[in-house]
Amino acid sequence: MCQLLGMNCNTPTDIQFSFEGFAKRGGLTDEHGDGWGIAFFEGNAARCFIDHKPASNSPVAELIRSYPIRSTNVISHIRKATVGEVKLANCHPFVRELWGQAWVFAHNGDLKQYNPQLHGDFLPIGDTDSEQAFCEILQALKQAFGNRTSLNRPALRDIEPVVRAACSDIARHGTFNMLLSNGQALFAHCSTKLQYIIRAYPFKQAHLIDCDLQVDFGQVTTPKDRVAVIATTALTDDEVWTSFEAGSLLVFQDGQAVIKDGLPVPH
Amino acid sequence: MCQLLGMNCNTPTDIQFSFEGFAKRGGLTDEHGDGWGIAFFEGNAARCFIDHKPASNSPVAELIRSYPIRSTNVISHIRKATVGEVKLANCHPFVRELWGQAWVFAHNGDLKQYNPQLHGDFLPIGDTDSEQAFCEILQALKQAFGNRTSLNRPALRDIEPVVRAACSDIARHGTFNMLLSNGQALFAHCSTKLQYIIRAYPFKQAHLIDCDLQVDFGQVTTPKDRVAVIATTALTDDEVWTSFEAGSLLVFQDGQAVIKDGLPVPH
Repeated sequence: MCQLLGMNCNTPTDIQFSFEGFAKRGGLTDEHGDGWGIAFFEGNAARCFIDHKPASNSPVAELIRSYPIRSTNVISHIRKATVGEVKLANCHPFVRELWGQAWVFAHNGDLKQYNPQLHGDFLPIGDTDSEQAFCEILQALKQAFGNRTSLNRPALRDIEPVVRAACSDIARHGTFNMLLSNGQALFAHCSTKLQYIIRAYPFKQAHLIDCDLQVDFGQVTTPKDRVAVIATTALTDDEVWTSFEAGSLLVFQDGQAVIKDGLPVPH
Repeated sequence: MCQLLGMNCNTPTDIQFSFEGFAKRGGLTDEHGDGWGIAFFEGNAARCFIDHKPASNSPVAELIRSYPIRSTNVISHIRKATVGEVKLANCHPFVRELWGQAWVFAHNGDLKQYNPQLHGDFLPIGDTDSEQAFCEILQALKQAFGNRTSLNRPALRDIEPVVRAACSDIARHGTFNMLLSNGQALFAHCSTKLQYIIRAYPFKQAHLIDCDLQVDFGQVTTPKDRVAVIATTALTDDEVWTSFEAGSLLVFQDGQAVIKDGLPVPH
């Protein structure tokens, strides 16, 4: 199995603290040593760093640790190979362009007897069931809304039911915990295991589980900042993380959950 | 204007030596300080590193300098912004998936009154004429061959005329020096300025123009290795580089030019 890490914020934020603990699970505090990746959005564009080495000792991961990249949407993944060999083509996150936006996807879980009918607009480059699932979601979006441009992209409330239906379909084949973003929102589907935390004013201290590192978020934020962090399991041992319900899809925007299973989340 | 660097080899090779000189032009020995990028193929997949900082002092470029990534197809670009502001979405190379392969593209030049009819399968994420041109080439390929999979991708000899026609069309709008690869071959179109060199046995020494660095390729190669390096201008001062003819398209495969303007290159 793999592990997921996502971040969605209302102001560009670096992910150094969370990544520090998460990367340890890539071969050090956990067994996910078969490659890893991280994608950062800047507007509609995303840049994705992947490496086939374990995150705990990858030179690319070392770069991410030392070079703070601020972003409002980040998706990261560490891999324990189940389907598909250890090679770059099989490293998550995967990236595709749709409607003039980068879409980024990462998956935790295994799918059985999963052979989606992909018509060719989005095809996997590697061998994983995960990349097939990503292609199926994008195909569903394209089938639902056709070709769009920056002038007439569908609204988030219209995109959500299509993503949710596709996730439901795919989850019938097995475990489908996934993170998906187009740079405007972050979609998180839980099939078995996913947790999140919203950090907002007044900010407190937090201490990582996977290494002895502590940060006082009050020192590195402004009162209007809001950050949602989503992970396979909690990254800190002194904060309260919320577990997703099995089968649920949450949409995060500006650092908070805005849609849960099709319904607006009241704030 | 920007500068291009490409490498096509018959065996996975690192690009450290060439990149060392090339990156110096990104803000140090030349003025191309508005971002840069480099993409490495591994099979049908590509990983692309981009940064908006000048290549001469970017932490991501420092990683590339210190972490040898071996690949048979590499495309790199340093940017001097002409159209489109300095931001990640405007950094080359650009990457898209077609027929289950990553396609990577970088461009040097300016296009005038260039507004291609893009139907929506490939749309630019940023603001550059370059990314529009990339989308037009991929659209031409998709229109010519339809949806294909790994089982029935068109052959290189069939792809080449489509790429060549698209390049000709685009070059009517201005300067169009470009590098394009799908991991199997590297296409290089010259409109004004592009040079290449083939390095093969017996290998010799070479010395960079942009910094005082020398390598003895005989020490780091095997007799069967063959490497084509393509650049806007020669990177070494003690080797003979060949200038492209204006308006020509060369296709490189396994470290040598195999098609020139539609005709097989004899060896």
